[in-house]
Amino acid sequence: MKDKLTVVKIGGKLLDNKQVLNKFLDSFSKIKEKKILIHGGGIIASDYLIKLGISPKIVEGRRITDKKTLDVVIMTYAGLLNKKIVSILQSYSCNSVGLSGSDCNIILANKREIRKIDYGFVGDIKKINTKIIKDFLSLKITPVLCSLSHDGKGQILNTNADTIASNISSELSKKYDVTLKYCFEKKGVLANQKKTNSIRKNISKSDFNTLKQNKTIYDGMIPKLENCFLALENGVKNVFVGNPDILTNEKNCTKLTL
Amino acid sequence: MKDKLTVVKIGGKLLDNKQVLNKFLDSFSKIKEKKILIHGGGIIASDYLIKLGISPKIVEGRRITDKKTLDVVIMTYAGLLNKKIVSILQSYSCNSVGLSGSDCNIILANKREIRKIDYGFVGDIKKINTKIIKDFLSLKITPVLCSLSHDGKGQILNTNADTIASNISSELSKKYDVTLKYCFEKKGVLANQKKTNSIRKNISKSDFNTLKQNKTIYDGMIPKLENCFLALENGVKNVFVGNPDILTNEKNCTKLTL
Repeated sequence: MKDKLTVVKIGGKLLDNKQVLNKFLDSFSKIKEKKILIHGGGIIASDYLIKLGISPKIVEGRRITDKKTLDVVIMTYAGLLNKKIVSILQSYSCNSVGLSGSDCNIILANKREIRKIDYGFVGDIKKINTKIIKDFLSLKITPVLCSLSHDGKGQILNTNADTIASNISSELSKKYDVTLKYCFEKKGVLANQKKTNSIRKNISKSDFNTLKQNKTIYDGMIPKLENCFLALENGVKNVFVGNPDILTNEKNCTKLTL
Repeated sequence: MKDKLTVVKIGGKLLDNKQVLNKFLDSFSKIKEKKILIHGGGIIASDYLIKLGISPKIVEGRRITDKKTLDVVIMTYAGLLNKKIVSILQSYSCNSVGLSGSDCNIILANKREIRKIDYGFVGDIKKINTKIIKDFLSLKITPVLCSLSHDGKGQILNTNADTIASNISSELSKKYDVTLKYCFEKKGVLANQKKTNSIRKNISKSDFNTLKQNKTIYDGMIPKLENCFLALENGVKNVFVGNPDILTNEKNCTKLTL
């Protein structure tokens, strides 16, 4: 029987509120099985960009990452947020290690080709090296990964955290029984965008296609759910989307199924 | 017989010049034995502090680290510099992992008590956990440590990189034959501050006391050399101070002896 592994992606506004983040990390540290945390940090990066006089540029929910923006992204994701998360987890007796995709060569990526839009220093995942992640997990060290990859030639690249979570979960499902949890500020995928309590308890892949067509699901939720289904198709056992309560209770959120 | 280990501390202006840093990392990656790199990043932190409208405060060569300054220190040390160094090392086929003292609980420290000066969020080392460092070294992964520690209660602390290098080298000398190299922009400890070529080839502990008394050695060089002698007294085999050439040639620099 495979060991259980929980992969949690934290995003949205959860990272910006100290109390919310602390409560989330307290719950996360109490997950008994092996676990991995993956985070971005978009809003904090944008705050620092503005303070430094650089205009944040977001197109279709994705950040245009020029050279100066990349430096701020590296500073906030791999520096400020990653190290704060790790030091808080240590205070909850959860031994953890903060990593970017260049550390231990974990995430190799190709700089995205310029087509309609030049995204700048954005990377599309080429290869995930899971050996060192497995080593950490067997040493009882929890990897905390920020959403940066590298090209192997010295260039760090900005990579979507949802995509990293999906890809890593898929790779690790060869060895573990993986449950993937996407945490954000909402209770789940809403059936009606105007009603925050209108949670869809279950979304199958065919539901997803209908919900896209009738525009119940749109914008950034589309790639997020695509990442969910990709993970399920690649061997991940369970995928949930919801607020931090899903760390302890999988009933009041959205469960994705094929 | 013990395995050889080289611990290199890079500091000063070497971190600010892209070409110099690349050349240094190329040489560093070619060290065949086990190795560790330790870095600070003072000048880059000060640059960002100024850009963000925060005045850098340095007293007796040490940074006063208030809350806002600490965030910038974390961003530049653990983020920008640490991840750039790691991604460049990866491009030289040197598999490395960027770490702060909170990662894997490597450096536990106490926040410095307020006496004459309130240094703010500055940590004095309490304990170094070398187990994970040894694990990385046996996995052929080179640890790249930035000069941050933590208090185990969720607080990151700014800690002098020279002191970290000395302490880690001392601890690891129980298992390895350690050579510690302090790299900066000068060729070594100068016999005459006005002559950049007046290198002292050798400084013993009694020489050091004389040189302090006659003020040939002063300011920041005093704690740096104190760290060197502390390392030698605690089992480190060789300590050198010089420019990046000391990575390949130990003859044109300053060798410290007891």
